[in-house]
Amino acid sequence: MNRSKKVSDAVIKRLPRYYRHLSALMESGVERISSKELAARMNITASQVRQDLNNFGGFGHQGYGYNVNILYREIGAILGLGGELPCIMAGAGHLGTAIINYKGFASRGFVIKKIFDIDENIIGKEINGIEIMHIKDMQNYIRDNSVEIAMLCVPHSAANEIVKCAVEAGIKGIWNFSYHDISVPDGVAVVNVHLSDSLMTLSYKINEIKNKGL
Amino acid sequence: MNRSKKVSDAVIKRLPRYYRHLSALMESGVERISSKELAARMNITASQVRQDLNNFGGFGHQGYGYNVNILYREIGAILGLGGELPCIMAGAGHLGTAIINYKGFASRGFVIKKIFDIDENIIGKEINGIEIMHIKDMQNYIRDNSVEIAMLCVPHSAANEIVKCAVEAGIKGIWNFSYHDISVPDGVAVVNVHLSDSLMTLSYKINEIKNKGL
Repeated sequence: MNRSKKVSDAVIKRLPRYYRHLSALMESGVERISSKELAARMNITASQVRQDLNNFGGFGHQGYGYNVNILYREIGAILGLGGELPCIMAGAGHLGTAIINYKGFASRGFVIKKIFDIDENIIGKEINGIEIMHIKDMQNYIRDNSVEIAMLCVPHSAANEIVKCAVEAGIKGIWNFSYHDISVPDGVAVVNVHLSDSLMTLSYKINEIKNKGL
Repeated sequence: MNRSKKVSDAVIKRLPRYYRHLSALMESGVERISSKELAARMNITASQVRQDLNNFGGFGHQGYGYNVNILYREIGAILGLGGELPCIMAGAGHLGTAIINYKGFASRGFVIKKIFDIDENIIGKEINGIEIMHIKDMQNYIRDNSVEIAMLCVPHSAANEIVKCAVEAGIKGIWNFSYHDISVPDGVAVVNVHLSDSLMTLSYKINEIKNKGL
């Protein structure tokens, strides 16, 4: 598998979609699939599928298509999945709680080990069976337990200080919901989630349909 | 403004980011900005900025850059913002509640008018000052109040039926958090939000850094 060339962000963003669709295909007992069929499911072109997967060395065979199980495992490996990725959640508000209660993450290996918050009234309690600890204990916990990912569902005013603590403790990646983009040193990965961007994309699409007079 | 050519999804997805950054620039009192400065803020290239904005007819002037206020308003108009977009929330669980309580949407015009749920224990109560009604009353409410957007934070098992009701009532767009992609007739816009995709993108980036030995 040739991984030396730079893969574009657009391709990287599509990889989880491939992974989701392949997972659903496996659950339906499908063993192989053509680029055309996979493209139709994903609402992209067959040529796009072939181009995307060629970034990682192909995987397909002319006249056969893709072996669903192998492709699923290979894309999983590219995505860094397959083992357990220990996570912590900073912030046990509504959004943090929604994510903690979401069932789909642990099965992908994203296991939330502890929750950290500043609210004394909830310290020691549990959400979805996971203990809430005081935020002041987060840094040691990350260091002592080789936590890879910090999920950040705190107000923006608290985000920078928490990121600094987590980075000093050796965190590998930050999943940031705190609205403003955060900056981290090289060697730490960040994905900023902006729910309002996705809502604005929807209003763009609605507006586009109105302009077309559909 | 030439809006006749097809704008790529990648550009459309960047428009809300431009809008956010321009909003922040306005708040800081910045009146004009070069493509280079705007690009640096957004971590893209100046040439990308110029290309993106050329899709909509440019807006910039050689040697002057962009007028922040005008560009903000123009991109807002392209995004269908500027007026009120009446929304309803289907599902008052943790995620729905987190979104209802989020302060940033109403200022963009996305005003949640009512919340709909199936749980009899919460019907009639309020979240963030917004009344919770029974899901069976959703269809009439959408029709009678020209609701544009239905936000969907319900379990997947309930999603299809709710989408069907909302579409029959004339909904314009669906913001879908119910994990599985939903399908709607032409003339209705959908944005599917997959939080797990964003988390897998993070694990990809972590894995990439590990592979580089940073």
